[in-house]
Amino acid sequence: MDLKSVSSSKSFGGYQKVYEHFSPTLQCNMKFGIYLPPGVSETEKCPVLFYLSGLTCTEQNVITKAGFQKFAAQYKIIVVAPDTSPRNCNIPNEDEKWNVGSGASMYVNATEEPWNKHYQMFTYITEELHQLVLNNFPVIQDKISITGHSMGGHGALLCALKYPGRYKSVSLFAPACNISNSPTLIGGLTALVGEEKDILQKWDTTFLVKNYDGPEMEILIHVGSDDEFLTKDLLIDNFVKAANECKDNKIKTKVFLEDGYDHGYYFVSTFIEEHFKYHSSKLSS
Amino acid sequence: MDLKSVSSSKSFGGYQKVYEHFSPTLQCNMKFGIYLPPGVSETEKCPVLFYLSGLTCTEQNVITKAGFQKFAAQYKIIVVAPDTSPRNCNIPNEDEKWNVGSGASMYVNATEEPWNKHYQMFTYITEELHQLVLNNFPVIQDKISITGHSMGGHGALLCALKYPGRYKSVSLFAPACNISNSPTLIGGLTALVGEEKDILQKWDTTFLVKNYDGPEMEILIHVGSDDEFLTKDLLIDNFVKAANECKDNKIKTKVFLEDGYDHGYYFVSTFIEEHFKYHSSKLSS
Repeated sequence: MDLKSVSSSKSFGGYQKVYEHFSPTLQCNMKFGIYLPPGVSETEKCPVLFYLSGLTCTEQNVITKAGFQKFAAQYKIIVVAPDTSPRNCNIPNEDEKWNVGSGASMYVNATEEPWNKHYQMFTYITEELHQLVLNNFPVIQDKISITGHSMGGHGALLCALKYPGRYKSVSLFAPACNISNSPTLIGGLTALVGEEKDILQKWDTTFLVKNYDGPEMEILIHVGSDDEFLTKDLLIDNFVKAANECKDNKIKTKVFLEDGYDHGYYFVSTFIEEHFKYHSSKLSS
Repeated sequence: MDLKSVSSSKSFGGYQKVYEHFSPTLQCNMKFGIYLPPGVSETEKCPVLFYLSGLTCTEQNVITKAGFQKFAAQYKIIVVAPDTSPRNCNIPNEDEKWNVGSGASMYVNATEEPWNKHYQMFTYITEELHQLVLNNFPVIQDKISITGHSMGGHGALLCALKYPGRYKSVSLFAPACNISNSPTLIGGLTALVGEEKDILQKWDTTFLVKNYDGPEMEILIHVGSDDEFLTKDLLIDNFVKAANECKDNKIKTKVFLEDGYDHGYYFVSTFIEEHFKYHSSKLSS
């Protein structure tokens, strides 16, 4: 695996780095951010938290705007922030719309032309990047957690529901929870995987959670009451209802509706300390 | 004064806002960010900290990347983040170079064509914006401090040295301290104010500080040892030497050279808590 260093900046005693690599899964070059806390080394390994960003983001958004490095340093957690889709693949109109194409992989494996050659983001995140991080950085191999914002919240849920037991903890910021029922998001999803209802539901966390049969899982969710996508696109209530119906009560959701916050990074940065505290407690137990 | 709201997002219990207004001083529309801590109101006023950004920045850089809102909320300090220059003034080539024109006012009052009509940033910051903030927001009128990064550090020093006693505390992140001696910065300065040595020195803080005759002033400075501009452009040593020569030891500098940090916002965000702690102690005394 050929990892090319793009940048490295000291931050809160550790290093915020960006790497580029050729992804065989996606058939293009990909970037990801990785924060290495102070002191981390081959002899002092750390847990790792994957952070999946929302539509239109690159790996830069969370590493520059969320202010997480202070808490990643404090709790000694490596943080991996992948890009949100393949880019520069010469797919017609790939950069034209914010909800289809570049930045809008929806974290699924595409089956439809022209996206299917490159847009295999679910496999990229859960297999290729996952192994790449475990093989190349000082990570404690069984201490892995996941979080995400907006469409990245959907992505984090997909990972957690389709890999039961892999992630020690799951937390979400204003997650899209039922994308096949969102009028804004359904167009992107059908472009990637077609219009068959049972296929759509295999990539919709509200449907997936009903049949979840892995170890017990608690999911921490923060969302702002002034989030402009709350009622029409995030559909968190649908997910919570479905989670409550899953057998043996295996999924527990802890949802905090935060008064007056919107969908952006001012919201994420306000609550990110709580999420690191949460992941740290689960990762150290 | 006609203040137009551009955006408002809840952040750490307070609000990060951006306003636009027509500036008679600069003869163009200007934006600035202002953070209002939780609870601030007409009856509960707060101190105010001006933050001046570096070359190429807008009001967005510090409000999205520095993570200061957590500490502004905690210490109850209003933070004002102006843009770094006039923009969209139809000056030939105003957007062509990073060190002359848009984003590169150097915080001086220009006397040279074609910049002199609009580039009166020193007066804008110290008179127009200053009064606008004091008149329109719940600020304790005599509790004002200033800070800045890079060229904004130069700007903050200009303000503090030319308005002795106005600012309760002054702190700087990787400041440009002797711009008429920097090969990278001198071109921008001469474009704005000409090439006469005594004029250049009136806008150079290393020369100004020698003749400072106001109340005693302490200046906190952080800079990274891996700052790519450290030796050639920032010239902090020259400033410290000159400050030590000013009569009656009226200027005290506290310089921290931080191992391994570079010039960017990962450096600023790492040390911003210390700066808020510092300003808070001075503003509350």
